[in-house]
Parts: sequence; C-alpha cells; structure tokens
Amino acid sequence: MVLGGLRFLKGRGDSILNKPETYSVIGKSIPRVDGVAKATGQAKFAGDISLPGMLIGKVLRSKYAHAKILHVDVSRARKIKGVKAVITGEDTAGKTWDLLNRDVLLLAMDKVRYLGDEIAAVAAVDEDTANEALELIEVDYEVLPAVFDPIEAMKPGAPRIHDLPLNILKKVLVNHGDVEKGFEASDHIFEDKFATRSVIHASIEAHACVASYDSSKKLTVWASTQGPFGRRNQLSLTLDIPTNNIRVIKPHVGGGFGGKNEMLANDFCAALLSMKTGRPVKIVYDREEEFICTRRRHPLIIHIKTGVKKDGTIVAKQCKLIADSGAYANRSPRIVAMCGAWMTLQYRIPNWRYEGYAVYTNNSVTGAQRGWAAPTVRFADDSQMDIIATALGIDPVEIRLKNAVRRGDTTPNRFKITSCGLSDCIKAVAERTKFKEKWGKLPPYRGIGIACGAYPSGMRDLSQDAASAVVQLFEDGTVNLLTGASDIGQGSDTVLCQIAAEELGLGLEDIRITAADTDLVPFDLGTYASRVTFFSGNAIRAAAQDAKRQLFEVVSELLEANVEDLQSRDRWISVKGSPEKGMSFAEAVKAALYKKGLIIIGRGYYHAPDVEPPSLEDGRANISLAHSFAAQVAEVEVDPLTGQVKVLKVTAAHDCGHAINPAGVEGQIEGSISQGLGQCLLEELVISEGKMLNPSFLMYKIPLASNMPLMDPILVETEEAEGPFGAKGVGESTQVPTAAAIANAIYDAIGVRMRELPITPLMILSQKRVLNKEKAL
Amino acid sequence: MVLGGLRFLKGRGDSILNKPETYSVIGKSIPRVDGVAKATGQAKFAGDISLPGMLIGKVLRSKYAHAKILHVDVSRARKIKGVKAVITGEDTAGKTWDLLNRDVLLLAMDKVRYLGDEIAAVAAVDEDTANEALELIEVDYEVLPAVFDPIEAMKPGAPRIHDLPLNILKKVLVNHGDVEKGFEASDHIFEDKFATRSVIHASIEAHACVASYDSSKKLTVWASTQGPFGRRNQLSLTLDIPTNNIRVIKPHVGGGFGGKNEMLANDFCAALLSMKTGRPVKIVYDREEEFICTRRRHPLIIHIKTGVKKDGTIVAKQCKLIADSGAYANRSPRIVAMCGAWMTLQYRIPNWRYEGYAVYTNNSVTGAQRGWAAPTVRFADDSQMDIIATALGIDPVEIRLKNAVRRGDTTPNRFKITSCGLSDCIKAVAERTKFKEKWGKLPPYRGIGIACGAYPSGMRDLSQDAASAVVQLFEDGTVNLLTGASDIGQGSDTVLCQIAAEELGLGLEDIRITAADTDLVPFDLGTYASRVTFFSGNAIRAAAQDAKRQLFEVVSELLEANVEDLQSRDRWISVKGSPEKGMSFAEAVKAALYKKGLIIIGRGYYHAPDVEPPSLEDGRANISLAHSFAAQVAEVEVDPLTGQVKVLKVTAAHDCGHAINPAGVEGQIEGSISQGLGQCLLEELVISEGKMLNPSFLMYKIPLASNMPLMDPILVETEEAEGPFGAKGVGESTQVPTAAAIANAIYDAIGVRMRELPITPLMILSQKRVLNKEKAL
Repeated sequence: MVLGGLRFLKGRGDSILNKPETYSVIGKSIPRVDGVAKATGQAKFAGDISLPGMLIGKVLRSKYAHAKILHVDVSRARKIKGVKAVITGEDTAGKTWDLLNRDVLLLAMDKVRYLGDEIAAVAAVDEDTANEALELIEVDYEVLPAVFDPIEAMKPGAPRIHDLPLNILKKVLVNHGDVEKGFEASDHIFEDKFATRSVIHASIEAHACVASYDSSKKLTVWASTQGPFGRRNQLSLTLDIPTNNIRVIKPHVGGGFGGKNEMLANDFCAALLSMKTGRPVKIVYDREEEFICTRRRHPLIIHIKTGVKKDGTIVAKQCKLIADSGAYANRSPRIVAMCGAWMTLQYRIPNWRYEGYAVYTNNSVTGAQRGWAAPTVRFADDSQMDIIATALGIDPVEIRLKNAVRRGDTTPNRFKITSCGLSDCIKAVAERTKFKEKWGKLPPYRGIGIACGAYPSGMRDLSQDAASAVVQLFEDGTVNLLTGASDIGQGSDTVLCQIAAEELGLGLEDIRITAADTDLVPFDLGTYASRVTFFSGNAIRAAAQDAKRQLFEVVSELLEANVEDLQSRDRWISVKGSPEKGMSFAEAVKAALYKKGLIIIGRGYYHAPDVEPPSLEDGRANISLAHSFAAQVAEVEVDPLTGQVKVLKVTAAHDCGHAINPAGVEGQIEGSISQGLGQCLLEELVISEGKMLNPSFLMYKIPLASNMPLMDPILVETEEAEGPFGAKGVGESTQVPTAAAIANAIYDAIGVRMRELPITPLMILSQKRVLNKEKAL
Repeated sequence: MVLGGLRFLKGRGDSILNKPETYSVIGKSIPRVDGVAKATGQAKFAGDISLPGMLIGKVLRSKYAHAKILHVDVSRARKIKGVKAVITGEDTAGKTWDLLNRDVLLLAMDKVRYLGDEIAAVAAVDEDTANEALELIEVDYEVLPAVFDPIEAMKPGAPRIHDLPLNILKKVLVNHGDVEKGFEASDHIFEDKFATRSVIHASIEAHACVASYDSSKKLTVWASTQGPFGRRNQLSLTLDIPTNNIRVIKPHVGGGFGGKNEMLANDFCAALLSMKTGRPVKIVYDREEEFICTRRRHPLIIHIKTGVKKDGTIVAKQCKLIADSGAYANRSPRIVAMCGAWMTLQYRIPNWRYEGYAVYTNNSVTGAQRGWAAPTVRFADDSQMDIIATALGIDPVEIRLKNAVRRGDTTPNRFKITSCGLSDCIKAVAERTKFKEKWGKLPPYRGIGIACGAYPSGMRDLSQDAASAVVQLFEDGTVNLLTGASDIGQGSDTVLCQIAAEELGLGLEDIRITAADTDLVPFDLGTYASRVTFFSGNAIRAAAQDAKRQLFEVVSELLEANVEDLQSRDRWISVKGSPEKGMSFAEAVKAALYKKGLIIIGRGYYHAPDVEPPSLEDGRANISLAHSFAAQVAEVEVDPLTGQVKVLKVTAAHDCGHAINPAGVEGQIEGSISQGLGQCLLEELVISEGKMLNPSFLMYKIPLASNMPLMDPILVETEEAEGPFGAKGVGESTQVPTAAAIANAIYDAIGVRMRELPITPLMILSQKRVLNKEKAL
C-alpha cells in the first residue's frame, strides 16, 4: 500500500533553465504509454517472438565447478533426427566475450571454471529434441580442485582458476588526504565488519533471444536486453558480422536490473546457430538457468574503520573490501573500484583510504545489479553510522546532517557534487516519520532506522558515453520520436515522450516513441547507471529543439517574425506575447513540406561534457555530471518467537532533480523498496561447493505482496542545470538506503547489530551469530 | 537475348559536377544488392507475411456495371462460424479514397459504377470461410442503364454515371502560338486518327496487404506498394489514425509499373478489418481481381493534325484526344493533361493546340501505368511522323533529327529542356542498325522502324515533391543508408547504395540499405515518374555529404588539416595530394564517437528547385528539372499467312544522364521492350458491356521468352547538372518508343499503316480494318 506522495520543489541555488511558470506535460503523473499493451497482455516479449521454420536452441553446461575439458564428442547428438546444428568452442574460433578482460571464451574449450559454464549448444526442431541432443553430447572432464571462498581463493596455495599467480583479478587502492593522520586527529575510532551474500536480479522475464540470419547476410535478433546497441556491438565483434548487417530489436522487457546489460550465451548461441542453419533460432533460459548461469550481485566482505570528532564529524575513514567475483572477471574490476566511491558519496570524508579486491572463485559469474554494489556497501557504512551515533549519543538524523555532502563538494573519488538534496531528504523523512520522537522510544520489538543513498546519473564508460535521438514531424502535427533508449519496465518511454512533447509544445498523445531497435533508431548506450532520463532525455530534448528550430524558420517567414520571438505551446506556434498571431503546429509542418519541400527531421545527441573516463587503476574520475540523493526511514516489528522481521513502513525521500513524471519516480521508489527489502531480509543464493541449492522461486524468496510495508514516497526536487528540464536519474539511488535503514531499525527494535545480509529469522534468533570471515580482515 | 551494350559518354555542354577522373563505385555494372535473396527465394513479399492469429480478408464486388444499391444485408454472413468481421460502406462513414476528385467512396453505398466496384469485405479464419461469407451477403440492386464507349458516354443523353451534367470529367485545352496561322503557313497538312485499347500492368506479384492493429492503437501494414509514405497518408486520412501511429512496410515487391502507386481496397479493408477484430488481416488479390478491379491504362482515341514545311519541319500541330477513364476519375485529369505534354516533348512544335477529354464510362477504373500514356500517345504521333516522312520522301531518321528538341528549348507545356541526348540517340540507333540502308529496302514482309521517346525525371505533384535520406556511420566503418525510396524490382536499391558509397569513399559492401518502411526511414514520395535515382539519389548524396562533413570536422582536428582539404576514397580519409597523411574511415568514426561523443547521422533532403506544380486547368508547368530521351529501332518480320508479327531485334539508345549502374539501365531497357512489345502486339483487356472476358494470363497474353527479340541497348550518356553524379531517370522513357517503332517497322514490312493497338494477327490479315471511332473526331 502506498501513501499519497509528498512533493516539494527546492531551488537550492541551482540554476533554473528557462523554466516557464508552468509546464504543460512534464512534472505530471501521466499514465504510461505502454500501459494498455501490458495490461491487456498484448505486449510482446522476446520469448513471444515466433518465426516460420524457427528452431529451438539449448546450451550444454559444465557439470563441474572446475575441470579440464579433454574432449567433446558431438557426433551422437548430430545424428538425431530433428537436430539441425551443434556448436562447440571450435566453432567460435576461441573468441572471448569480454574484450577488456579476455578471460572467458564464447564456448569453453580448455577448461570449465564454474558449474554452468557453457560448452556447446544445439538447435533442433523442438525443445525435447534439443534436450535429447544435449544429453548425447559427451564431454570428457579432468576434474580439478576448486575454491569457493574468496578468502581461501586469495591465498597463494589456492587452486589457480586462471593463468594468474594468484586469484586476485583486481586490487584497487585509493588514498585521499592522510588517513593515518586523520585517525590520530580523531576523538573516537570505530572498526566494524560486515558481509553480504549472493543475490540475483530475479527479473520476472527470463533471458530470451530469437536470432534470424538471412540470405542477405543480415542477422536480426530479438533480445531481452537493456541496450540493443551494445548487443549489436558484441554480436558484431564475436561473430565477425559488420555492424550495419546486424539488427537488434528490444521488444518489451520484463525487468533487467543490470542483468540484461551484457550478452549471455543465449544471444550468441542463437545467432551462431541461425548462421549455421539458415533458420531462425530461439533460446529462452528456464528459471534454473536464470539462477545458475546469468549473473549475480557480488557478495562482499567489508571492513570499515572510521575516525570521528566527539560531535560525530567524520575525520578519517578506511575500508577494506573483498568481492567474490566468481569464475570470470566481467565487470568486477570496475564494480570493486566503485564500491570505494559509494563509501564516499554520501558523507564528507576528509581523509580516506580504500583497498578493494576482486577475487576469482569457482562460483558463478557476478555482474552489474541495480546500484552496482551501492546498496550492500551502504548497508555496511550506514550501519556503522548508527553504531557511531549510538556510541556518541547523537541522534542518527543529526549525525547524517552534520556529515552530508553538499553542492560544490568533490568526493575522494573526484565526483563533483552539483545539485544536492541530501540534507533535505534527511530532514523530510525525519519530519515525516517523527523520527526523533520514535527513535529509541518505541515499544519492545518495534524499531525505526534511517539511512542515506546516492547514485550518479550515468557513468562515463571507458570508451564513450553518448545518446542520440531523432524527432520526425508529420503533416498532421504528430511526431515520431526515435530513440535508442531502452524501456525495460521502468517507464522511461513515457518520460521521454513527455520531454519531447514539452519541448515541441505538443500533447503526449501527439508523440509516438519508436525505441530500442538498432535499424530504426540512432545510437544510445541503453539502460544502466540511471542514465536514461539524463542522457537520452537530453538527446531527445536537443533533437526536439533542432526540429523546432527548423520549423520556426519556416514559420518566421510566414508570420513575418523573428525565429527567437516564436513559441510553441498547446499545438500552436505564435509570436511570444501575441498568441493570436500564430498558426497550428500541423499547419506549420504542412507549410514546411508543401511550400519548401522541407522534411523536418530533428537530430540531437548528448555527450556529457567535462566528465572523464574512470581510471583503470583505481576507478577515480568525475564520471558523472549529476547525482541523485535519497534518505529512507524504515519502521519494523520483530517477532521474538519466530525471528521474523515485519517491515511496517518505509518513508523514502528522493532528490531526482525535477521529476518529469512523479508517478514514475514513485514507482521506482516502490520497486526499490521491494527489492531492497527482499535483499535485506529474504534473498540469498545458497551455494555449496559451487552448486546452487535453491535455483527456483520456490526456494529463493523474493518479496510477496504480503511482505510489503506501507510506502510513503517523498519527492525532494532540485533543479539540475545539466539535466533535461532539471531532471536527474532515479532508477538506482532509490534502492541504495533500503537495506541499511531496515537493519538500523532492527537494531532499534532488538538492540542487536546485524552485520550480514540477508538478515534471516535464524540470525535474529541466534543473535550472537558472528562473522566467520572476521579473521581475514 | 541481349547483345553487349554500347556505351558512350557525351558531355553535350552540360556542366560536369566535380567529376573526378574515375569513380570507384558508380558507373559500374554492379550486381543487385537484393539479387541473392531473390534468386534463392528468400525474399519476402507482402503475401508471404504470416502473423499469429491472422485472418483472411475478402472483398465483395458489384455484379453489375451500373446499379443503385437498395440494401446490403450482412446478417447471414456475420453468423457463420469463423467469420470475425464484416464491413460495409456504413463502417467507412461515407469517406472517399480520392481527396482531389472525391467521386469514389471507400466502399460503395449509394451506387455501383462498374463491374467490380467494392461493396463490402469480410475477415474470417480462412479463405474458404471468407468466400462463403461473401456469398451470403445479400445486395439488392436496381440495375441502371450503363455506357461503355467514351464517345457514347460524352453524348448528352448518355446514362449519367456521376452527378454531372455530362460524363466528361475533365476537358483540357492548351493553346500555344497560333495553330491556325501555323497550318496556313504549312506546305502540307496531315490528319490521322489512332486508337489504343485497355492494357493492364500485369505485375507478376498480385496486390497484397497484411494489416495489424494493436492495443497501442498502432496500425502496421505490409503492403505491395510503390510508396509506403503515400500509403501511410491515405490510411491516416481514411481511417482517422494519426500519421505517427501508422507504420507501412514495403517488403520486396514483384513489379508495380504504376499499378501499386495508389491504395486499393485490399489495403484499406485489411486495415479496417484489423481494427474491427484486433487481429492481423491479410488480403491478397487473386489474378482475376488483378484484372477486374485494380487499374488499367487509358484507352485513347487520338486525332492528330500536323502542318509541316516541305523539308519536314513541323510548323503546327493539333491534337484531340479522348480517354476512357472508367468509372472514377482517379488520375485521369492529370494523365489526360499530360498526354498533351507527351505530344510536344520530342519534337519542336511552334504552334500547338491540344484538346483532351477524360470521360467517365462504366468500365473499370484507369490509373497510372509506366509512362502515363506516353507510349500510346507516341504510338500515334511517331506513326504520323513516318506517314509524313513517307509522303515527303524524307528519311524517318532525318525528319526526326530535324525536329528533335534540344537543350535550352521550352516545350508548349512549359517543360524546360536541360541535358538532352535525343539527337545522339537517334543517330546512335540509326548508325548501329544501318537504318538508312535497310529502310524501304528489306525483302517482302521484313521491315524496320524508328521512334523516339522522352520522359521527365520526377514530376512535381500538386502538393509537393520531396525526398529525404539519413546516413548512419558505424564504428567499424560500415554504413546504414535509410531511404524512403521504394525498390519495386527496378534495382534502385543498388543504385542508391552506389551513390552513398561513392560519396563516402566506401565500397558497396560497406553500405546496407534500409528502405521503404515508414518507421525506419525518412519521408520519400516513392517510385513513380522515374524519380527515384534523381530525387532519392540527390537526397542520399546530400545525406552522405552531411555525414562526411561531420566526420571530416573530427578528422581535420586529428590530422591538423582543413576540412576542405580532406578526401575519402577506398575507406581512407586523407589530405588531398598526401594520401599517406590519413586514417581509415572506421578509425575516424571511432574517434568521433569515443573522443567527441559524436554519433554521426547524416541527413539530406531534396526538393527540386524552380519547378512548379502543374496547372489544375491545363496541366502546364515546368514540372521536372530533367528529362531522359530515347530512340529505338525495331526490325520485324510479318507472316502473311498467319498475320503474326515477329519482332527480330530492337536497338534502343537511351540518354539517362550518367548511368550509375549501366546493367540496371540495360535491365530497364530490356523490360520496357518486353512490355512495349506486349502492349503493341499481344495485350488487350477484352471488355464487353463492362465485363472482362479474358481476366487471366491464359487469355491475356504478355510476352513469353519466345516472343522476345534480340535486344541491343545503347547508353548515350549526358551529364545532367541537377542529377546525382549527373544521372537522370530511366524507368519509363525506355518504354515510350517501343510500340511506335514496331508499328513503323510493320508499315515498312507490309505497307499498311496500323492505327490501333494492339496490332493483332487478325488486324494484319484484315488490313482494311478502320477505326470505328472515326466519326466522333
């Protein structure tokens, strides 16, 4: 249940970009443009695509967590009637997925490194035949000793997973100020250890791909992806097909959360099998594959040492962090580097030292997940903030306000803070929940906790970071908005239509969005790092401005007015101040085409100025122009008999800049609370000797409606000068504080500090459970 | 069989646009980009589209040529199991197809005006059910007197087909100079009458459409069309759907020849039935429907009076022309106006009078067909040229050279002649065939004849005339060319790729063309009036130049050179004169994206400058910037026993500007000779009392391979300053002279002037057959 959201706009000294008194379309809670299609079941997902002559593909996976492959015999599988192709590593020319780390082959050839590693794939006339063929592929393994614990894996004598002297794939070291001097200057020093376990994205839609390679050598792929352009690029490089001969289409996507960012074996194998057979091939992962061979969030071991003044002001902080990265590097080097950044983005830290390790193990592969480890890092750090506040007798709200970052700050990771509503968010949730009246004063087993969060609006990639858009105007005054942005369920299509409509002076119903199909729309990096509204929104606004400029040039002749004196509002283009001197938008487009032969195609692109690619060494750089901020208060009740934690209410204040669609922001907040709550209390991939013991939604528990608290979203709006109409990202910052706020509320309820996620009933009941990783840190 | 084509480039004083010494890609006979798909049968046509849940639609047609509709009862049809929708005129709100003439409803309500007029349509689960439903629709007719002969139809007492005092839908009157004074000043005056019968386009692919209306209110249509943008516009206006909610896709098209320019009932009914049912609906015309209810070429009655000097110089010409337009106006007003233009485009006419009539009859509807009546008009006029030449004892080549239009001329229709290779074409075919040595000197029953032709490169429409294109550059140096141009079999996709490749300095294999899908590509009016190479080619060249300029701006920084000093050739961008100082095209695109965040999207459009929309009154205007010219020589043998005419050889010289793909031009010439020969000797829609007696390829004879002559194409290339790389159109001029050349050859063979098309064996045998329309003129 959701309480009516509170919303107030704070200028906070940020520049306000030509903001008219009122906007027509943005800032309004407009229903989603894809709502009807989804509500009526007509929305097509990749798995719904069916083509004539289509084959079904299946992937053969390693039975061992670590083994040499001596021989793969596919001859029996190939002989089965209905089997049209079998591919192994030999068909992939030893190529790698991962162009940066180059530690993983498309299909394993020499070794397998986790239970689920891909060895071969088949395409057959139906699923049963494909499964039968998989069973007939004979793989001779030589089983190798394996290692699953990152602490053990780091030791010199551990089984070597890759050709490296140690299993440490990346060590990140950051020094800012002088942390030792900082500790000396501190009145108190706190040292705490925390750990988190594996969780998965748990998107309701499984990874699905249909690939069709035709006689013109064109590969068309329908994929559940967060970014079809990245997928196109990966397919081009791995299959040696020129970029312009690949079309990747993103149909509707049923959730991504970072898990559909990168290409998995289903896409690659479907494409290669289609090339081999000349027929379309579909591969849809079953739910078990979703658990064992997609990606998971990094389990972290986090040791934090913080020095503070008596009044709670942070003087120095040191963090050592170990991430179980699983069998292959994937994004671990960057994510581990970013873990340091997330430690330093909410609270000012004059002296800082960070030591982060990404470690290979024979567990399954890790990857990006909503917030890139920020929710888990903040669980640790915001838990310690409460430990400090309690020890010093300071209110948790006050200690956060005292240390909160502010506009104009530069963090130890070199992030430059522009618009910043963090303090206002803290105040908003504190006031709204009467935090100070409740904290420490609630009845037994009832508790209240607060935590903060922040996240960039897009992150500069190593190579580039850009978005583009095209706006086509039609003679009836309607518009086609072409964008590479990928709505994967978050509602960005609606937000982007609002931006185009506002800029053009039209209604939302005049805009059709055509998105995320590489043949239809211009380049965009896709959905990740909370970048869509910011990057794609800016590109779309620029494209709309370009179209409007072209149109105004025609109108200025007809109305005998200067281009700069014209305005477009409510489908009417007129001279500012003389609305009667005008013409309809549709008439203007008609005039452009009929009188001038001018076909209006607005073109816009956005490339964040003055950001830097992250350092490959320590990840530091000003990688984003804007950051969103958040504070959440959780109220809980703990059942002392069962250990069950019931979250009663989460009050969540978020600074997402100027909210283009407040209902959409509230939706992100609510979804984040659900996911944060699940990952705090319910979710854990139980992995034993590399084998997942609970690869199904029967045993891996995501929150049900009955687990959900009352939710009270508060929009603390700032005006971000660089954002489109002042907007910033909202998709990830919203989840960052949730687990920490709940953990702090549990402490308030039962007086026991829980240092490991998930916080299960067993842990509550045992109470004295300690970290078994303690000695390592 | 095709002889090796001869090719020579004539500058003819036309400006040569920055023409480098040699081109890399254009001017070369490169195989078609769609060749493999078509040769392997993988190319998909609209009728090949099949969607889940798709219904089959069928159209109910009038049983009478002229009748009142008293009542339409669809209740029994609706009750059949498997029938999902039945629509009648009541569902179309009395709307019209034809926004200019407004004389035809989407589905007939009050009256039917020809045998085939559309009354209702059904959508059912399969074809049998749909046909059963059609039979159960009961229509009460009140049969009205009908008229089929245009001469009869023009009379005051004739049955009135529309609410007009007479059945004359358009009278065009043009006076230029003083025709009476011209006749007075002439040494000889010739008067002749000619007639032509109905022929159809006979595209091998029937009209097909699949329409799918979805829950987001978007209509997607796969249609066999010559221009998806026009189709989109017609669907938008007739169905009240905003333009941006309609996507029209042109799959491969198996021939159009003007017959797939306009929307027919299959498109509209499929769309409306899909809206009614929420399911995809396919309507494919059967071959009989192709004959009875698509469009046909106007049968013409042509009276020409020409005054000449003794030396054959034309002094004055007068033409009266009557066109049987069938039941509805469609394009008849413009086509009849253009018939006058075609009379005056080849030979200089100082004094000219034209009187053209478009007449309603109860025959089926006429429309555009390759050359818009130019081939039939030229049959008459070039036949009379030979009559004059023979009478004056002048060689047919000489009389044509004497009167041929030249660069700088303005025709009586106000056409301004720019590049003009007409005289060179005449000389080329004459020399090549040794015409003068053969004419009048061949053995009995063998003959040789010559005729000329010309056609614009695009015609300014009443409203507008424009093409646009987008060129996207990818980091691997490949390109996506987005164009609204519609390849309907003529090979334009290949030509357009060549233009883009040449401009960008890439190979043809680097270009992928994405064409004729209104969601993918920018606006283009489509394929008609020989406009594609000229208009779309110019737009594409402009888009490629725009992309290149953006790229050069990046490269100029990297190479420290001025933009204007850069060149791109063979995938290498370098400083002119210092090819070693350069970088690869792909590296440049990468640098633009990675260093500048610049996504290169070139945008180009073309709108012919200084052309005028045609006068609604008499059609006069300078509607095109360029004209193609042609001369053909036919050599025939007549069998005096059977009357069969065997065309032995056609030598065809064509000035299409600079040929981008000579093989493609030769293909157009060969196809035109086939169609021209068919319409000259074989093809006739036999219509009796409005009923077609031969609606099948068994009885309506298009040429077989065995009917085809030796063909000897000659390319007389000029450089057209306004054309892309000097090119002009070629799709229609090529057919213009064929029938006339064959008719003139028949006269040379048997000494009898055939004045009616088609020239059947019976006509040859009867020899004295006369025009029964004589008295009317």
